[in-house]
Amino acid sequence: MTTYASLEWRDGVLRMLDQRYIPHRIEYLDLRDQHEVAEAIREMVVRGAPAIGATAAYGLVLAAQRSSAHDVAALRRDLMEAAELLRAARPTAVNLGWAVERVLDRATDPKLEDVDALRAAVLQEAQAIAEEDEQTNRQMGLHALPLIPQEARFIHHCNTGSLATVAYGTALGIIRTAHEHGKAKHVFVDETRPRFQGSRLTAWELEQLGIPYTIIMDSASGHVMRTLGVDLCVVGCDRVARNGDTANKIGTYNLAVVARAHNVPFYVAAPTSTIDLTMSNGNLIVIEERPAREVTHVGDEHITMDGARVANPAFDITPAAFITAIVTEMGIAYPPYDESLPRLVALAEERRTR
Amino acid sequence: MTTYASLEWRDGVLRMLDQRYIPHRIEYLDLRDQHEVAEAIREMVVRGAPAIGATAAYGLVLAAQRSSAHDVAALRRDLMEAAELLRAARPTAVNLGWAVERVLDRATDPKLEDVDALRAAVLQEAQAIAEEDEQTNRQMGLHALPLIPQEARFIHHCNTGSLATVAYGTALGIIRTAHEHGKAKHVFVDETRPRFQGSRLTAWELEQLGIPYTIIMDSASGHVMRTLGVDLCVVGCDRVARNGDTANKIGTYNLAVVARAHNVPFYVAAPTSTIDLTMSNGNLIVIEERPAREVTHVGDEHITMDGARVANPAFDITPAAFITAIVTEMGIAYPPYDESLPRLVALAEERRTR
Repeated sequence: MTTYASLEWRDGVLRMLDQRYIPHRIEYLDLRDQHEVAEAIREMVVRGAPAIGATAAYGLVLAAQRSSAHDVAALRRDLMEAAELLRAARPTAVNLGWAVERVLDRATDPKLEDVDALRAAVLQEAQAIAEEDEQTNRQMGLHALPLIPQEARFIHHCNTGSLATVAYGTALGIIRTAHEHGKAKHVFVDETRPRFQGSRLTAWELEQLGIPYTIIMDSASGHVMRTLGVDLCVVGCDRVARNGDTANKIGTYNLAVVARAHNVPFYVAAPTSTIDLTMSNGNLIVIEERPAREVTHVGDEHITMDGARVANPAFDITPAAFITAIVTEMGIAYPPYDESLPRLVALAEERRTR
Repeated sequence: MTTYASLEWRDGVLRMLDQRYIPHRIEYLDLRDQHEVAEAIREMVVRGAPAIGATAAYGLVLAAQRSSAHDVAALRRDLMEAAELLRAARPTAVNLGWAVERVLDRATDPKLEDVDALRAAVLQEAQAIAEEDEQTNRQMGLHALPLIPQEARFIHHCNTGSLATVAYGTALGIIRTAHEHGKAKHVFVDETRPRFQGSRLTAWELEQLGIPYTIIMDSASGHVMRTLGVDLCVVGCDRVARNGDTANKIGTYNLAVVARAHNVPFYVAAPTSTIDLTMSNGNLIVIEERPAREVTHVGDEHITMDGARVANPAFDITPAAFITAIVTEMGIAYPPYDESLPRLVALAEERRTR
């Protein structure tokens, strides 16, 4: 079984798997400064909230290494500037800001008295974020296991596997754990327009993992539930508000509504790093509008007439009322989420600072 | 305002607008026998239930003209054979069978005593089908008018305009009539994967008609209802069962479920030729499975990995419970449909035989 990591730190260079060419070509992009990192995030060389977070953390490592600062105050100023640049690369996923904040926090530790120590600390923190990510994902998989029936038939939206994370996967990690325990019968893979993360990336990962799957149109989920039967939906997320409202790839909300109409449980896999307790509800979350070209073209193929008017929101908000449970690495949150989520986030903080 | 007809009968040749190249090129295909017609239906040179019906009727005209039969019995046998071929071209739309049946009915009129009279009658019946189609569509538009609020914001799925019919359109005809009466504010156009009938064809027709529109992902309908507001959904259909269950382009059912969750009325435009009283419910309707390539490729662009497993049902069934009303050329059917639909079909029969 081959699996590919979304990113790798080697000899002062951040090597990224260029996901725009998957599944046709395995190409890597070596990033050498924070500008290249911000560009790679914006252009979706890498995507998936946890992977974006780790990538941004390494963006700060590169900024620290490239900085010509000779004292810690100047180096911290350079890091702040790089942080601004990286945060602006994509607005919706909270992990980006979370990872940047975590590295900056570490960089402001007053015990770091020279630039070498500060550079080392920044690298260490980025590596910790990357390493914890896989562990977090495996824990989510295990917590979710009791929710999953024997011979489970899933619907999965977008991509939430190794490619969307540092390793293993969030919602796809739940499916992997279920598969490792002999419980995953079939995965219906939403193709996930407009960028086809499902049919391009998730199908490719499932093939490598030996998990049976079928690619379906995003609009076919209800037909599949009605005619073939589905036991549960699992999706990832880009930001979860305090009340459980969840921002995720466009189409998640439709899937949740259709699941509710069929009494199919709808689960969100959310590392606590994706939970934003500062937002009381999902209507406050900024939804990124992406270029029209993602809708009007597929590769070089022009679909629509010239000048066709298009809306291309990259995400939507699924209100908490449509979410059966939210799976975190600290356990499962059930409604009311404004009670269960803060508790799990506090537990995660506690474990990290222990 | 330019509009394009999907088909035109000229000098013994059926000239079809080749919809596979819209909106990039206006190309016509001249069809000269029933085999070419069946092929054009199968390959979706023409699509849309009413347009397919009229095309098949002209397929019988061509068969009659090409036949070397010297007596009416032999000519009728040739027509029966051509009818079989045409009926098999696509399984889901009932209009195909309906139009073929109607021409055959005419051909078996015992008053037709020589081959020339029979050929003339077949042509006359095909032309009547084509001519009635536009009239039918305009009547549906007028019947629907009282259902439409001022400044109406629509969601429309697939293509149901001039291209899907002989002229004017069914669900898009309802939008056109609303526009002509100053009631259509905006149309959200489902792109309609996998073949993009919405973003390729419907957007192009709306642009020509001067009706404001925005192309959206099929999976974004809930997001648009939740954040922008939608007043009603209008869709066409390929076959309506006696109880109101409706087969239409894949994604129709998801749209109906999402509309219900937002209390948005969901209307089906159905010429009585699309109502199949012989089917008691939608589960009896055969759903065409189309080639995987429609999912794995867009034009020459290969999206998925080689050998990716795909389901590509071209249609789905929307249960009658999700349909607010069915608009026919004879008036509006409300639930219970197994009472209202037979009444309207009987009225249409009566008018035609009067």
